[in-house]
Amino acid sequence: MHSVKQFIETALAEDIGSGDITTDSLVPRGKTGTAEIIAKQSLILAGLDVAVQVFKTLDPDLNIKARCTDGDTLDTGAGILSLAGNLRSLLYGERTALNFLQRLSGIATHVRPYVEAVQAHPARLVDTRKTTPGWRVLEKYAVRLGGAANHRMGLYDGVLIKDNHIAACGSITTAVARVRDRTSHLVKIEVEASTLEEVAEALQAGADVIMLDNMDLDQIRKAVERINRQAIVEISGNVSLEKLPLLAATGVDIISVGALTHQARSVDISMRISPTENL
Amino acid sequence: MHSVKQFIETALAEDIGSGDITTDSLVPRGKTGTAEIIAKQSLILAGLDVAVQVFKTLDPDLNIKARCTDGDTLDTGAGILSLAGNLRSLLYGERTALNFLQRLSGIATHVRPYVEAVQAHPARLVDTRKTTPGWRVLEKYAVRLGGAANHRMGLYDGVLIKDNHIAACGSITTAVARVRDRTSHLVKIEVEASTLEEVAEALQAGADVIMLDNMDLDQIRKAVERINRQAIVEISGNVSLEKLPLLAATGVDIISVGALTHQARSVDISMRISPTENL
Amino acid sequence: MHSVKQFIETALAEDIGSGDITTDSLVPRGKTGTAEIIAKQSLILAGLDVAVQVFKTLDPDLNIKARCTDGDTLDTGAGILSLAGNLRSLLYGERTALNFLQRLSGIATHVRPYVEAVQAHPARLVDTRKTTPGWRVLEKYAVRLGGAANHRMGLYDGVLIKDNHIAACGSITTAVARVRDRTSHLVKIEVEASTLEEVAEALQAGADVIMLDNMDLDQIRKAVERINRQAIVEISGNVSLEKLPLLAATGVDIISVGALTHQARSVDISMRISPTENL
Amino acid sequence: MHSVKQFIETALAEDIGSGDITTDSLVPRGKTGTAEIIAKQSLILAGLDVAVQVFKTLDPDLNIKARCTDGDTLDTGAGILSLAGNLRSLLYGERTALNFLQRLSGIATHVRPYVEAVQAHPARLVDTRKTTPGWRVLEKYAVRLGGAANHRMGLYDGVLIKDNHIAACGSITTAVARVRDRTSHLVKIEVEASTLEEVAEALQAGADVIMLDNMDLDQIRKAVERINRQAIVEISGNVSLEKLPLLAATGVDIISVGALTHQARSVDISMRISPTENL
Amino acid sequence: MHSVKQFIETALAEDIGSGDITTDSLVPRGKTGTAEIIAKQSLILAGLDVAVQVFKTLDPDLNIKARCTDGDTLDTGAGILSLAGNLRSLLYGERTALNFLQRLSGIATHVRPYVEAVQAHPARLVDTRKTTPGWRVLEKYAVRLGGAANHRMGLYDGVLIKDNHIAACGSITTAVARVRDRTSHLVKIEVEASTLEEVAEALQAGADVIMLDNMDLDQIRKAVERINRQAIVEISGNVSLEKLPLLAATGVDIISVGALTHQARSVDISMRISPTENL
Amino acid sequence: MHSVKQFIETALAEDIGSGDITTDSLVPRGKTGTAEIIAKQSLILAGLDVAVQVFKTLDPDLNIKARCTDGDTLDTGAGILSLAGNLRSLLYGERTALNFLQRLSGIATHVRPYVEAVQAHPARLVDTRKTTPGWRVLEKYAVRLGGAANHRMGLYDGVLIKDNHIAACGSITTAVARVRDRTSHLVKIEVEASTLEEVAEALQAGADVIMLDNMDLDQIRKAVERINRQAIVEISGNVSLEKLPLLAATGVDIISVGALTHQARSVDISMRISPTENL
Repeated sequence: MHSVKQFIETALAEDIGSGDITTDSLVPRGKTGTAEIIAKQSLILAGLDVAVQVFKTLDPDLNIKARCTDGDTLDTGAGILSLAGNLRSLLYGERTALNFLQRLSGIATHVRPYVEAVQAHPARLVDTRKTTPGWRVLEKYAVRLGGAANHRMGLYDGVLIKDNHIAACGSITTAVARVRDRTSHLVKIEVEASTLEEVAEALQAGADVIMLDNMDLDQIRKAVERINRQAIVEISGNVSLEKLPLLAATGVDIISVGALTHQARSVDISMRISPTENL
Repeated sequence: MHSVKQFIETALAEDIGSGDITTDSLVPRGKTGTAEIIAKQSLILAGLDVAVQVFKTLDPDLNIKARCTDGDTLDTGAGILSLAGNLRSLLYGERTALNFLQRLSGIATHVRPYVEAVQAHPARLVDTRKTTPGWRVLEKYAVRLGGAANHRMGLYDGVLIKDNHIAACGSITTAVARVRDRTSHLVKIEVEASTLEEVAEALQAGADVIMLDNMDLDQIRKAVERINRQAIVEISGNVSLEKLPLLAATGVDIISVGALTHQARSVDISMRISPTENL
Repeated sequence: MHSVKQFIETALAEDIGSGDITTDSLVPRGKTGTAEIIAKQSLILAGLDVAVQVFKTLDPDLNIKARCTDGDTLDTGAGILSLAGNLRSLLYGERTALNFLQRLSGIATHVRPYVEAVQAHPARLVDTRKTTPGWRVLEKYAVRLGGAANHRMGLYDGVLIKDNHIAACGSITTAVARVRDRTSHLVKIEVEASTLEEVAEALQAGADVIMLDNMDLDQIRKAVERINRQAIVEISGNVSLEKLPLLAATGVDIISVGALTHQARSVDISMRISPTENL
Repeated sequence: MHSVKQFIETALAEDIGSGDITTDSLVPRGKTGTAEIIAKQSLILAGLDVAVQVFKTLDPDLNIKARCTDGDTLDTGAGILSLAGNLRSLLYGERTALNFLQRLSGIATHVRPYVEAVQAHPARLVDTRKTTPGWRVLEKYAVRLGGAANHRMGLYDGVLIKDNHIAACGSITTAVARVRDRTSHLVKIEVEASTLEEVAEALQAGADVIMLDNMDLDQIRKAVERINRQAIVEISGNVSLEKLPLLAATGVDIISVGALTHQARSVDISMRISPTENL
Repeated sequence: MHSVKQFIETALAEDIGSGDITTDSLVPRGKTGTAEIIAKQSLILAGLDVAVQVFKTLDPDLNIKARCTDGDTLDTGAGILSLAGNLRSLLYGERTALNFLQRLSGIATHVRPYVEAVQAHPARLVDTRKTTPGWRVLEKYAVRLGGAANHRMGLYDGVLIKDNHIAACGSITTAVARVRDRTSHLVKIEVEASTLEEVAEALQAGADVIMLDNMDLDQIRKAVERINRQAIVEISGNVSLEKLPLLAATGVDIISVGALTHQARSVDISMRISPTENL
Repeated sequence: MHSVKQFIETALAEDIGSGDITTDSLVPRGKTGTAEIIAKQSLILAGLDVAVQVFKTLDPDLNIKARCTDGDTLDTGAGILSLAGNLRSLLYGERTALNFLQRLSGIATHVRPYVEAVQAHPARLVDTRKTTPGWRVLEKYAVRLGGAANHRMGLYDGVLIKDNHIAACGSITTAVARVRDRTSHLVKIEVEASTLEEVAEALQAGADVIMLDNMDLDQIRKAVERINRQAIVEISGNVSLEKLPLLAATGVDIISVGALTHQARSVDISMRISPTENL
């Protein structure tokens, strides 16, 4: 939560800017109200803490109660968050909180059928770095709530040697040795391979993970056999929901799918606000 | 462009973090290369300046040439950007630049069929505030490239009086008068109305724009007739691509569609990098 | 309030820098005290929330009580804020809080006679963008407390077509049509006109507001007649306090006066601090 | 200049926000123009570098030529800055650059008569910490250009022992000794004294500077005599332009005047922009 | 404390980055625990408030009790801080809090023998600007806790005229006069002198402090005699712990020693965490 | 380099603050000069790019030439950097650039003898997270230049399961399984073990790395034998320079030493500035 505090400030500033001219003109400063955030379709919830933080950033005195937990599967009409307090604060935060919830829950919900498509096999479904700039930590969190796992977070926490790196070094063997020498012993080394020859060289070089890049089913099966559990096998590229069961059946360990994040769409979540009656 | 510079810095920091451990281990500091960013599907381009700024932020010495212009319709294989210079800089910026281009072009491309669905009528298609937090200015720019227009940018540059504002004031009439008194004479006042009675009151109160909230076709037609061009008429809510032509045919001026942004998905754009051969 | 939090941090950093070397050397950490902020001249108060936020930023444990409300007219000696708590915190925040209060109340107080000069007429007095960089939202708030209204907040929330924009487009007619096409339907379009011909063209083009730039009284009267309530009429330029009643009598709707902000001077407000006696 | 770069970014963001909707709609991206910034009244110039930095921040490719130097006395009509380049950049920066120049030159111009009022005497005129929050470094720079000098910059670069500090310590003697012990040997120690007894104690305690707080002329003369050049003598409080010559004649070394900054008003400076003719 | 809040945020972001993947995987969110921070060697404590702020920034609900005070001399095993609350928060903050405490206490502890080496003489031991970038305020605070004093904080709060400044002006005399004219009357002027001739000129010019640069003992004694208490005498350069008593015996007022900060090493402090037993 | 730009800005602001009052008073704005940065002792250089960036941040027009490369072993008197350009810029940046170079080269130089102590064995020497807050990336870079390697960068890029994590999970076996399930397949899992039983359990659980915590030589040898190359073996705790050869001889793979960073001291580097002679 701590790492996204600044981003939440930015998001609020983006929507409120120099001031909510409608609310500031019409709602008296001391006026109070209550609000309910509600699922308008069935969904897997993600972003509850972010939504809470949006409102707390605006007004630490709001009374906020969670009705469920991130990762829960909700039906249409299910309550997510109940809020009570200053009416202006509720109106200021409404859109920003919903925009976070809708996108993050959209990802979690979108990921689920992909996860189900491979669940008959031990293969693990993972995301990629194809995320919305500024949203990496949040989107990867939503992917986990949807049931898939994360690939590396960025360029800093995992080694992935691609064709250009190999070209710059001369060979896979040199590349693996050099990276091994220069990075932490806690970081694994993955090598991208497009042919069985490259697979063999990567294996020989001691790669921890071998990524089979855009190979067809037959090549994948041969590569899995060749690697023979001496390295983790990942496949990547041209992975559709339809092809997933077949791919998982090849015996690969990891299937990375950019679509988990970049093809997700927001789900429908709304907020009903009620001003407190004057007595 | 100036207003997104800080956001681009944040996006790069998110991906590179404490350093690209693969590239820094394997690519010599002085090594150079070239790169081409290419459309992998037909799309409407958006985000060219952002992509250029990503690379300039990393390395002001890169040589960058645009192959087309934002708003262009590109076929599969079309070139977008050509780059030449330090190979590390190209590798550092690749994913971030593509993530921006893929999402923004995704929105522009997604918007186009909505625009075509209303083009037989004078109605104007506009977006909403249902955008990705942090991305408001960029996503609204992509919407314009797709051929639609923008609703207000945030809570600060347009008045939209909703049910809670009216409840806090007592009546539409009071609300419009109060806002008129307290906001700039350059800002228009929009009132949300759910019934024809509310439409009548908003009109009488002098609303500049009346938003018909979740009305059916018949109600919309009656409202348009009742308003009789004395105010701009906007419809919002439950607007699907399929229903758009019918809705546009009612004679409304503005149709706002949250789906323009929150239902868009990234399009496929890639970057081919080639290290310069050593002579 | 939320939007100025960062600015208050900056202001405190500017005054305190690497530390208040006098107070830190002489006042024991646990020492407490009380303070009263007091008007030293008659004034219209503005900035109470900002002053409170200055002290809360430094020390959330201070006990703070407002003695009046922004917009109140205070006599010499009137109490504004009572504070109690850590003595160091009171001393750290004193000058910054007063500097905010003195300038903002200075503007509110300065604006009042301008407002009175036009009150016999329906014309509305508004400010301009001639504000102190960094202070736009605060100064425009003080202008409202003084009884005048705000023009647009910045370049982003209202269209004002000036001579250079017209020159870049070819004509007023083209300019208005193009802006109408490219901006939100919630933003009004204002056109600057220096001659009656330009007024006529702007009116014909459908401008929502026409600004008469530096016209004399006779021209203004003719323009008002010509426009005949088909657009809002604003005058701007060479507006002195003395000429205001005459200008307002012409029947214009809006009179914009840069002097409301850029000719205001701080009023005198002071803070009396008393260390708590040791028992 | 380096220390105000961030502030200039903030000021531009404040005015431009999510975009200059008029200019972006009407001025083609590649359109060029020229501009002249001109004094509209006689003034002492301050802020030239800030104005240049405003434009360079927006567009490093603008061609900018200074027509004079900060501190120059300009007549009405004198040229200040000539600019040439992208027309959008000129329009984006116009208001922000002028707002800086108008306020800073306003201070320099306002300070000059105060300086002249004391110039027959060796007394030095200095400013105070009563500056516009956010503007301390800039306003103190403008004061110097007007011919006066600066008091300490903030709470961090000079010791000023006031009544509350003395009360917290027990006596002036204790306070001076304690500060001497705890602060750098490069920082002078000033003590505020309201009576001749306090003056005597401060002198005895070894104060480097003694501030006579709100004393009348007679008391001041006695204090100056008593101090007899063993410490620097400063007077503060109730200093009007009219009383300055009398006060300076008492033989004090320093006269601090808050009005130098908080009573200054902007001077009139404008910018004439001309689009380049199409050939 | 207020001025280092931002730096503490930066330090936490540096260690936690996109998340503590070990703790987040293994420690349930609601799990609680207690912790003790303990001296593992004898030391002078510095940084208690910083350590507290590290944990409060992460989690305002932690219960934190100080077992001692900054400046205390602690034996091996002495308790410094007791904490209780959310176990994740304790684990997130552990390393960052310790890194601050270890370095700051390292400086305070390192300074002490230098102070003892001069305590038979009135000479004051001070630090320099040779501090760890980003840590100036904190390191100078630790120096004071170790018993030494501070030289100026930066280039902004004290004048030190060195050879290059003199060369740029023509002479010491001109330099002192010019600085006197252009800086606040609360700032003292120090001149660096390498020869007795320069000492004489600085004295004549009215320097408040004269720094004897790299002089031998004999030269220092002559300079002290020559200055004869008409200015503060500082020595700097080639000052080792061994030579300090001899240097102090020359009668100089100030001895500045860069080694106080740049030769200090961290002391050993650890944190023992205990998860709360489930009942 | 990109990731430390902001930190360099902070460091410059810390030293220059509201302005270099000596230089600004005495050195004319247009005055130029040259400078040489020189080693004053034998050292291993680290921080060249940071020093260059310090000066470029202040003044992009300075002419800067590197005389050597990071990692070079320099003798006393060796030239590091030559600079030419604006004299003020050289004076502003001097101390900050030197403070970076002195500390970073201090670490690289300090690390070297530790590296030599193990070079007869295959064991790899690595640093820890005991770094100066704010300096992690820079200090770990200096460690590599000294010839050692890096452990994980922070809590985000490697799993290290310690006693508290195990206690919160129940057992090493559960902990390893849970982490494996929840983190990226590119991150290795290290388990801290204090006894041979724990070593056995960690091995059985599939830990990639086993850290032997504070074991004596005999226990270490047994653990190495027991692990038998099925996992990487790391030792940590109580590692002195003297014991290193013995520890390395046990056959462990990794020896982590906090002292590499937290016991390093700055080396002596200075900058000689020469104003350009006026012709």
